[in-house]
Amino acid sequence: MDIEALKAKNPEHWNKAAAIRALTLDAVAAANSGHSGMPIGMADVATVLYEKHLKFDAARPDWHDRDRFILSAGHGSMLIYSLLYLTGDPEITLDQVKNFRQLGAKTAGHPENFLAKGIETTTGPLGQGIAMSVGFAMAEEALRARFTKKLVDHYTYVIAGDGCLMEGVSQEAIALAGRQQLSKLIVFWDNNNITIDGTVDISDRTDQVARFKASGWHVQEIDGHDPEAIDAAIKAAKAAGKPSMIACKTHIALGHAAQDTSKGHGALTDADQMAAAKEAYGWTTGPFEVPADIKSQWEAIGSRGAADREEWETRLEAMSASRQAEFARTMAGDAPKKLAGTIRALKKQLVETQPKVASRKSSEMVLEVVNPIMPETIGGSADLTGSNNTKTADLGIFDIENRKGRYVYYGIREHGMAAAMNGMALHGGIRPYGGTFFCFTDYARPAMRLAALQKVPSVFVMTHDSIGLGEDGPTHQPVEHLAICRATPNTLTFRPADTVETAEAWELALTQKSTPSVLVLSRQNLPAVRKENKAKNLVEQGAYVLADAEGKRQAIIIATGSEVSLALEAREKLQAEGIGTRVVSMPCMELFEQQDEAYRKRVLPAGPVRVAVEAGAQMGWDKWLCGERGKYQKAGFVGMKGFGASAPAEELYEHFGITADAIVEQVKALL
Amino acid sequence: MDIEALKAKNPEHWNKAAAIRALTLDAVAAANSGHSGMPIGMADVATVLYEKHLKFDAARPDWHDRDRFILSAGHGSMLIYSLLYLTGDPEITLDQVKNFRQLGAKTAGHPENFLAKGIETTTGPLGQGIAMSVGFAMAEEALRARFTKKLVDHYTYVIAGDGCLMEGVSQEAIALAGRQQLSKLIVFWDNNNITIDGTVDISDRTDQVARFKASGWHVQEIDGHDPEAIDAAIKAAKAAGKPSMIACKTHIALGHAAQDTSKGHGALTDADQMAAAKEAYGWTTGPFEVPADIKSQWEAIGSRGAADREEWETRLEAMSASRQAEFARTMAGDAPKKLAGTIRALKKQLVETQPKVASRKSSEMVLEVVNPIMPETIGGSADLTGSNNTKTADLGIFDIENRKGRYVYYGIREHGMAAAMNGMALHGGIRPYGGTFFCFTDYARPAMRLAALQKVPSVFVMTHDSIGLGEDGPTHQPVEHLAICRATPNTLTFRPADTVETAEAWELALTQKSTPSVLVLSRQNLPAVRKENKAKNLVEQGAYVLADAEGKRQAIIIATGSEVSLALEAREKLQAEGIGTRVVSMPCMELFEQQDEAYRKRVLPAGPVRVAVEAGAQMGWDKWLCGERGKYQKAGFVGMKGFGASAPAEELYEHFGITADAIVEQVKALL
Repeated sequence: MDIEALKAKNPEHWNKAAAIRALTLDAVAAANSGHSGMPIGMADVATVLYEKHLKFDAARPDWHDRDRFILSAGHGSMLIYSLLYLTGDPEITLDQVKNFRQLGAKTAGHPENFLAKGIETTTGPLGQGIAMSVGFAMAEEALRARFTKKLVDHYTYVIAGDGCLMEGVSQEAIALAGRQQLSKLIVFWDNNNITIDGTVDISDRTDQVARFKASGWHVQEIDGHDPEAIDAAIKAAKAAGKPSMIACKTHIALGHAAQDTSKGHGALTDADQMAAAKEAYGWTTGPFEVPADIKSQWEAIGSRGAADREEWETRLEAMSASRQAEFARTMAGDAPKKLAGTIRALKKQLVETQPKVASRKSSEMVLEVVNPIMPETIGGSADLTGSNNTKTADLGIFDIENRKGRYVYYGIREHGMAAAMNGMALHGGIRPYGGTFFCFTDYARPAMRLAALQKVPSVFVMTHDSIGLGEDGPTHQPVEHLAICRATPNTLTFRPADTVETAEAWELALTQKSTPSVLVLSRQNLPAVRKENKAKNLVEQGAYVLADAEGKRQAIIIATGSEVSLALEAREKLQAEGIGTRVVSMPCMELFEQQDEAYRKRVLPAGPVRVAVEAGAQMGWDKWLCGERGKYQKAGFVGMKGFGASAPAEELYEHFGITADAIVEQVKALL
Repeated sequence: MDIEALKAKNPEHWNKAAAIRALTLDAVAAANSGHSGMPIGMADVATVLYEKHLKFDAARPDWHDRDRFILSAGHGSMLIYSLLYLTGDPEITLDQVKNFRQLGAKTAGHPENFLAKGIETTTGPLGQGIAMSVGFAMAEEALRARFTKKLVDHYTYVIAGDGCLMEGVSQEAIALAGRQQLSKLIVFWDNNNITIDGTVDISDRTDQVARFKASGWHVQEIDGHDPEAIDAAIKAAKAAGKPSMIACKTHIALGHAAQDTSKGHGALTDADQMAAAKEAYGWTTGPFEVPADIKSQWEAIGSRGAADREEWETRLEAMSASRQAEFARTMAGDAPKKLAGTIRALKKQLVETQPKVASRKSSEMVLEVVNPIMPETIGGSADLTGSNNTKTADLGIFDIENRKGRYVYYGIREHGMAAAMNGMALHGGIRPYGGTFFCFTDYARPAMRLAALQKVPSVFVMTHDSIGLGEDGPTHQPVEHLAICRATPNTLTFRPADTVETAEAWELALTQKSTPSVLVLSRQNLPAVRKENKAKNLVEQGAYVLADAEGKRQAIIIATGSEVSLALEAREKLQAEGIGTRVVSMPCMELFEQQDEAYRKRVLPAGPVRVAVEAGAQMGWDKWLCGERGKYQKAGFVGMKGFGASAPAEELYEHFGITADAIVEQVKALL
């Protein structure tokens, strides 16, 4: 690459881009870790994007109608931090850049959305950024349809690397975006032909241009160091009428001794090589020093959008007060005031009718009353709509011709769905929920973890939650998945026992602002267990006494979901034998853990035998069985010890010994 | 579709295919559940494949040189069961077919490889079959290179549906197969334009032909009901010199009232509609009755390969005894006799040298001595070779021109890698291991679960196993992943503390025959903790006393991996204060759980305070802390309570309070 020619041809551009390159080298060297090559390689693309296209106001990174910039290749985090610092973001100061990757800094190793407003998403696990960007673009379409382009009209830009495109989730994202013709989604592929193990072709020879075209994308190929070509390509992409991929041929670690090598991917900290690279860039100031003229050019870019933002605010203020309030509520992710009353009314009715339905059906019954009063919900399923019961009559289908539709046919793409949901939630203004079988939590895992880490309230509707799904067999029968969800930080795992508990769980899920929820629902019908109407949301405390012991309290049976009715049945039998038995329903362990000790102690007092019943693995239960005033010698578990099998559900419950009689036996053996 | 014309044109073929269709209808009706449409739609393809191409001997489904048939669209399991029964498989009898989806039957809802020899893989979670097939085809290439085509020379055939192709893992598989030009891999795409939610185009408009071509595949498009076209396409695919995809335009549930609809995907049990379909097929016998002439035609197909098999056996017997023995050992998955001695010798040397290295480096040291004596290993990494330390000097690179190479550059495809590993293990003759960061267990999860369910001894080498990875931050720092692996049935999770334990863990992993292992390894250097040479493999018991209390035993500190040295340090401090402290190293909870009670009791006697230390979530530890003679009031945990952060490793350990001093405090607080 002839750097002198690049400099000579576009000197102003070159210097702005060189600022990114120099800051990256300095920050990585100071941290003695990080990834230098990618920000250096993509500095030209980023500079043109920020200078000529990205709609933003650096002083107000929370402006709702800004364009979104997503760094799917999250290891190149210094690209974002450089851009934010240079353009004048209030949070990413020079001190933050100097503290790159240090404890407490906002400039974490990989970008973390919750550390600074200017960072849209948490990326790093490859492919997640491009997959979330589909959700961002869908959210923009849906909100534009709802609030008009006076308020919502922006692009989603993504930088993705070879790693992002090799991850399978990228295919799900590309195909979904192509199907939905998301014309305001523009992806730059950092086509540098380098991965950690060597050149890309040692593991991949996919024709990415042909691949994107096969899914209905507009594709261009350009020199990623030519500012005019970059500008022209972005213009063409905006006009394309479909999602657009710009393949940017770049040199990783441009101008450094490690250029075009795997070494260039990582931390370039050799002092002599750094000096040589800076000399090549024509960069003569000291570490972290950006010449004033270059910094002010960048700051001008940062304030370029201020007028746009002010006009937007004027348009917003011209709207009716109620419209403004609704827009504010929606973007803030606040549930409507009506929600609590709606849930209470539903519960009252349910206690009267005592429906015996599968909890996936219960979930649908809740959605039927919730969706009409929460226009911000967007539901969907990974091709199991009828089984997940996620679609309600009022939603309409989100599609090219109907952006007001609120139901998404995600296709057989659990991972892409979960990531898109996260993207919608991060965009703001949308409360996404999506369904699949609980066992396929496995497919969605990387995105479900990222929901928790990113603090977004996505709702995962996971049905067919145990051997209760029956004949489809062990490939489809979750065993360890409750433990997986419960072990994940900042995740609420709800396994409701009947329709009332399902309504309460949904109410909690829909009012979360920084925690995702997993609703774990049965395939099979469950009897109603809540016989009395309570205005209070009992699931909120995680566990509660559903039926107390009559006479001396000798045993406590703790159960969740489909096993609560077995616990009640066992209690009947034990009481008949004079054994006082309490049944505790524990729909959400995480919330129970958050209660104060006094409450936990009231629900699970010391003394009685404790038996837990759940058609899943024991892991996670020992805490409630023998921890916190429980005793190992007086504790038992009725559940799964290995994988399930293929047979009708009732036979499986019998076969694996998850029955009222087995609970009774267990209790009696411990007494 | 004009069924009469199809029948008239190829009456013999039609009747054979009709047998599959009729058995499918009958079995699904008897089970009152299952998936009728796919076997009915693909019956013609399967019939031609089995009649004219598939190399197999139905009487000997374990013949090593058979072609492999993988039903990636596993819900269509009645296709496999029909084919096995019709061709005369000894295990899948008519009784089994009649007991489709019932408890104890070999004819499970989805195909399960461990129930009958004739079933190559467990499929059902979509995309897994096509992803595993890449491993099957790689195993065939590797074994052919090693044992010559006299012994190994066969094809891998796959039937994949729209669901398989929408799952992201299929892209990883397609790209990997294309890169490796696996010319003996032939995939039939059941192009029926139907998914559960509707026609495919509601969620996907990908041009699959262009997509496969973009990854270097040979592609053909045919009428999937035309036997001549099917035959010609298979011939062309065999001659293509690269992996081949045959897009078969089919009608789901052909000839049934539900043809070409989503309803046709599921269980078609309506008696009148069944009767009408059978009439259309010209099928006049009762349920489960195959006319003798048709059955005998199928049986002739089943025995077609007997002569081939006998010739193969003759070729095998003509080889030297040692060659035969090595082939038998390799295919049986038995470790070489030398392994135990090799590990013992390494341990002896390690105790002398006491290396302070990261356990990922320890793992490499073990592989350096193991790979040369185990030619059946095939290693690899998802583009983190230098970080996972998975490549040893002797392996060579598995590539188009070097099928003797034993190291695979899998690319950034954790999921595809894990699935391919499972395929290699299922094929037989290969012991696969592959590496990525432990946090990306999330990406590989669906295949890791399937390894456990399928009972294959894949070895997952998971490095950078905690906040000890440092600056890359919480997106890359596992917290809940130990709990995830431990909660999964039939999985051994090893977290060794030093090089000796790593060697012992590897020995156990390499001698498993039906259980996958996860090796959880540190990024950071760890001091040697095993000071004495023991011939015995101490990891085999899961946990053992590493350092006993001096004086009265007041505390037991239990730790794994990188935290064992902290435990030893804490013990020093406690002993200095006169507090007798035992340190238990627990590299494998699952194996400890399998020990008899007497042993567990010796290692963890009742009485002393127990503190567990692990830089992960607490879930899974309560059992050892307050279960089995432990007491809640005398138990503590030092570990992670939420996600990690981005900073140097030592600072993070300090920040999250995982230090020797914190352990000392915890013990003293409980005394």
